[in-house]
Amino acid sequence: MIKKYYLLSPGPTPIPADVLSSAAEPIIHHRTPEFSAIFMEVSTGLKYVFQTDQDVFVLASSGTGAMQAAVVNTLSAGDKAISLNGGKFGERWGKICRPYGVDLKEIELEWGQPFTAEQLADELKANPGTKAVFTTLSETSSGTLYDIQGYGEVLAQSEAILVVDGISGLGATPCPMDEWKVDVMVAGSQKSFMIPPGLAYISFSPKAWELAEKSTLPKFYFDAKAYKKSLGKSTTPYTPAVSLIIQQKKSLDIIKSMGLEKLFEHHRLLGDATRAGIQALGLELLSKNPGNILTAVKVPEGLDGLQLVKTMQGKYQAYIAGGQDPYKGKIFRIAHLGYMGGFDIITALSALEMTLSELGYDFESGSSMKAAQDVLKENWE
Amino acid sequence: MIKKYYLLSPGPTPIPADVLSSAAEPIIHHRTPEFSAIFMEVSTGLKYVFQTDQDVFVLASSGTGAMQAAVVNTLSAGDKAISLNGGKFGERWGKICRPYGVDLKEIELEWGQPFTAEQLADELKANPGTKAVFTTLSETSSGTLYDIQGYGEVLAQSEAILVVDGISGLGATPCPMDEWKVDVMVAGSQKSFMIPPGLAYISFSPKAWELAEKSTLPKFYFDAKAYKKSLGKSTTPYTPAVSLIIQQKKSLDIIKSMGLEKLFEHHRLLGDATRAGIQALGLELLSKNPGNILTAVKVPEGLDGLQLVKTMQGKYQAYIAGGQDPYKGKIFRIAHLGYMGGFDIITALSALEMTLSELGYDFESGSSMKAAQDVLKENWE
Repeated sequence: MIKKYYLLSPGPTPIPADVLSSAAEPIIHHRTPEFSAIFMEVSTGLKYVFQTDQDVFVLASSGTGAMQAAVVNTLSAGDKAISLNGGKFGERWGKICRPYGVDLKEIELEWGQPFTAEQLADELKANPGTKAVFTTLSETSSGTLYDIQGYGEVLAQSEAILVVDGISGLGATPCPMDEWKVDVMVAGSQKSFMIPPGLAYISFSPKAWELAEKSTLPKFYFDAKAYKKSLGKSTTPYTPAVSLIIQQKKSLDIIKSMGLEKLFEHHRLLGDATRAGIQALGLELLSKNPGNILTAVKVPEGLDGLQLVKTMQGKYQAYIAGGQDPYKGKIFRIAHLGYMGGFDIITALSALEMTLSELGYDFESGSSMKAAQDVLKENWE
Repeated sequence: MIKKYYLLSPGPTPIPADVLSSAAEPIIHHRTPEFSAIFMEVSTGLKYVFQTDQDVFVLASSGTGAMQAAVVNTLSAGDKAISLNGGKFGERWGKICRPYGVDLKEIELEWGQPFTAEQLADELKANPGTKAVFTTLSETSSGTLYDIQGYGEVLAQSEAILVVDGISGLGATPCPMDEWKVDVMVAGSQKSFMIPPGLAYISFSPKAWELAEKSTLPKFYFDAKAYKKSLGKSTTPYTPAVSLIIQQKKSLDIIKSMGLEKLFEHHRLLGDATRAGIQALGLELLSKNPGNILTAVKVPEGLDGLQLVKTMQGKYQAYIAGGQDPYKGKIFRIAHLGYMGGFDIITALSALEMTLSELGYDFESGSSMKAAQDVLKENWE
């Protein structure tokens, strides 16, 4: 039987056909007016998605590179900081801060559980002199949204900056950088930006730039001042990833013509449809505050979660993600992110139903597709 | 909402990604050993799909060009011939034969109704001196298979040749040219061959070559003898469509590695799943002998068939086909042909359910997806 590859993972995500094919166009030289014009269109488009008046810099790196840039541009050795660790990506802030000698208070959260703005205010009070709080918009390992707006309100009253890993969430769920008082926002190309991995984006608020003036952590490739200076000349300090930037221009054209509000609404609809399908099967979500980026689902008692993911991927070519670390084999994750449509959700649920049936789980066949379709039908436009 | 384009029509059909992307590779010159090697691989691969020991010629034309080649290479003005017209494509044989002065007996069949080998034997008896019988393997306008094997048995006992339009069916449903005694077989690239439109294929049996020796109909571009002579030199008489031939090589590699029997089985499974879904909705098939290439479905009483197709295409981007000529607005056609997988059937049925719901048709929501999934699940490998 002919099988097709379905990317249902939270990055890389599917890419529109004409964005994909533009990677086969001839490479143009990057020190030319032609490239600069494209590059500045991308810079402006990124400000639109970040919802900021600040510059957004384009790094040739994965999202983790931009996370490192957030740390090394704002702090100095011995600076006090807080990180929220509710999963693999919250944990990463600690892994970056410690080698640089940041005095980090890492708050370990149960995966999928919320952390309120009030709790953050208490932590700040208990840790005077905190320079930065590192957190995550959408924690990919648990499918959980955190209260960035609330954290912004709290930190605006303090000397600390709010640093947000928006890699998997920005563009898919509201997080207006300026309005929510985010000081450093980080994003990655392979999520709602609908291009391949390889670019990361970062922006700093005036409050973050003040810290950057005093920052003494060692840096070169990720030195934000170099990117700021080059952006003034409509270029990058080091060789840009030309083809990815051309792809990003094309994808941003799609995003702009659709409009950010509709892009959020699109992700909300796919998230609602997925959750309706999951619940129709009697399955339980991991997260207490699930976002519209991906849905993390508990593997029902008695079922082999590793086998579930293996069957989905190997037999049905439906590339969902499994659980990580403590949740390995205990959850699976279906993304609804990037260039996905309503029928991708139907496909994911059909593959899931066939897999669950094979693993001996008892449910009403077709029920998840029906439930998801009911949600989609009411909102399809 | 982000929408994706789903090609569910009986040609052009979806194309595997690496076959698509190979069209962006540099064009190579066609009078070179490099091109000849690729071309001969294609020729050999086509013989495998045609299931013939005869040469298969590659024409830069649509399938209709190869149909014309079948006529002009075998007949002379005033020759008697019979054509079976059970739809748009059976009708086309008549449209080609008449301008060339063929003395044609056109048998008009009700769309979707069978025509038996016994009936053909009777027609032959009633029309002595018939040189050729023109027929169709899978009539695309009605989704009907004809009894090519039976016709071959009948005509092998006569002086007439059997000419088969296999454009939409060859590769998707069994029709072994040599074993079933087909004398001229015609195929097109944009169907089960899984590449874009632009190439047509044709092969002649020894019995057909005998007629070709006597044929006096005017011909140049489609003169089979020129193609035969060039094939002996591993090339084509006129400039070949280089990029399409490179794509056909890649697609034939997929077909050969899968094996023809499995390709038939694949189409059978998708056809079974589609019909199960359609029947679960209480809808009726047009054809009394539906094939596994496409499924033609009667629009239920009281529903606007044109609106149905328009909604499927415009709102859900599910590009099924409508009815043609007498069946315009009265049927719709879902293809399961080319690079399609099981989830494309689920997608087609989900789009159909949402459309039927919008048009006010009464049915059990989710039932067609469940029925199709049950068929797929049992056979998914």
